Amino acid sequence: MGTAAIRGTVAILGPGLLGGSIALSLRRFCPPSQLRIGAFNVDEVAEVRALELADMVSENPAAVVQGAELVVFCTPIDAMPELARRIASHVGGKTVLTDVGSVKRAIVSELTGIFGARYVGAHPMAGSEQRGLAAAKVDLFDGAACFLVPGESAANNARVTAFWNSLGCAVTEIAADAHDEIVARLSHLPHLVAAALLVGAEKFQPHSLRFSGPGLRDTTRLASGPPDLWRGILVQNRDKARRALREFRAELERVESLLEPGRENELRRYLHDAAKLREQLASKAGKID
Amino acid sequence: MGTAAIRGTVAILGPGLLGGSIALSLRRFCPPSQLRIGAFNVDEVAEVRALELADMVSENPAAVVQGAELVVFCTPIDAMPELARRIASHVGGKTVLTDVGSVKRAIVSELTGIFGARYVGAHPMAGSEQRGLAAAKVDLFDGAACFLVPGESAANNARVTAFWNSLGCAVTEIAADAHDEIVARLSHLPHLVAAALLVGAEKFQPHSLRFSGPGLRDTTRLASGPPDLWRGILVQNRDKARRALREFRAELERVESLLEPGRENELRRYLHDAAKLREQLASKAGKID
Repeated sequence: MGTAAIRGTVAILGPGLLGGSIALSLRRFCPPSQLRIGAFNVDEVAEVRALELADMVSENPAAVVQGAELVVFCTPIDAMPELARRIASHVGGKTVLTDVGSVKRAIVSELTGIFGARYVGAHPMAGSEQRGLAAAKVDLFDGAACFLVPGESAANNARVTAFWNSLGCAVTEIAADAHDEIVARLSHLPHLVAAALLVGAEKFQPHSLRFSGPGLRDTTRLASGPPDLWRGILVQNRDKARRALREFRAELERVESLLEPGRENELRRYLHDAAKLREQLASKAGKID
Repeated sequence: MGTAAIRGTVAILGPGLLGGSIALSLRRFCPPSQLRIGAFNVDEVAEVRALELADMVSENPAAVVQGAELVVFCTPIDAMPELARRIASHVGGKTVLTDVGSVKRAIVSELTGIFGARYVGAHPMAGSEQRGLAAAKVDLFDGAACFLVPGESAANNARVTAFWNSLGCAVTEIAADAHDEIVARLSHLPHLVAAALLVGAEKFQPHSLRFSGPGLRDTTRLASGPPDLWRGILVQNRDKARRALREFRAELERVESLLEPGRENELRRYLHDAAKLREQLASKAGKID
């Protein structure tokens, strides 16, 4: 695009897995003139200080965003609207704002209502079932897909795109509703499926989970994500998540029918098609073009 | 138990991921007087030779099992009965036999029909989506659960138990039918779910898989398993796999209802329960007691 990466002050609100990884990555690959972190309790402040992760850390978000070129919301999505209202009068006219929220329709509508075209919503498809600064990684975003919901200002869209590019993300522009549809299938459904596999195994065959091998461990890794965070995400996308569940149950009904005698070749083809799709996924690991 | 590990000749039939890992582990931790491998084509023979994995490798299974103290079937389950018939007249009266088959009812019935109480069926819950000798690992079985379907001879059951223990497995005795019930839920269902997540995503949202993050990659890893091998496994356990799919669809219907407005606390509790169960799984990684 020719738009330069952010060189002024960057303010990260929320020093968790994502906020911490952004700070690590910026510092290493694309250091801003000043890196500030907004924390939300004394422990978080101490943790950021101990890691010497930022030039300034404060529990006062208004002070953190003052004069920033870019503000990144990295809190759970439920906390973003209130935080946005708290900082609204302290954010300058030339500041751009973005976020990492996993559901976009409600957040984009609320934050655009507050910041107008200065806010450009985003969602990097990176993460971990772990949470907190201790799990942050310098290369968390390297090669990840990042969705961007463009706002009214082409210049601001380009600046926010340049920011996510500078972390190694491949940015794709998308409407909020289409985004929420995709993540319902690629992220929220797998999360619910992982949870249901565990709860179901324990219900239908109590105490059998201790016999499980590495396959079930991988298949259910997502289910160890923080329940509060995920309740918030799923509630914000409940209609699309429910539709994804309905479609998936229909797909499982089809799979069940492939287990009928006489359909062995179709079953084999189904497994083959799935393996092919998985191969394409695997080759994207860490890189996306 | 006091039963000593196998010290005589061990014959492994099938130098794939599991057979190769058994060979590596035996050689390192519990070397038998002679380690022999039965391969099924020239390439496999060459591969075993190149790795200097065995004292003897041959395409002639009759020669491989001659005089062995223990024979381990490590081929795909579909190939085991025919192989058993081929070697039957070459297996001595004091030889014990075991296998790694993922479904036990049919195999136990067929191999017990051929070898009587000399055969003691097993199923180590270890593996990988990769196949072949190149993927073999010395510690594949270390800390894994291993099911054992006891036969009529307590002495032979103890010898086969000692063998699996010597690879680092924690052995649990179980009836064939109960085993097949458990793996339907802990292994075959997750495999089908992983396949359906991929095929479903591509069907309902074509070309969206390229946006997926690490979560979906882990959730669907199982689906990259070899289609022919898995067709064989699923067909042998089709009734129980279908039942597991039916139960799981009902569980997903319950999850869908938790996404209704007003049920946020129940949804949170469900996610919390799943995370707790996953935590127990994770703490078993590599170790089981």
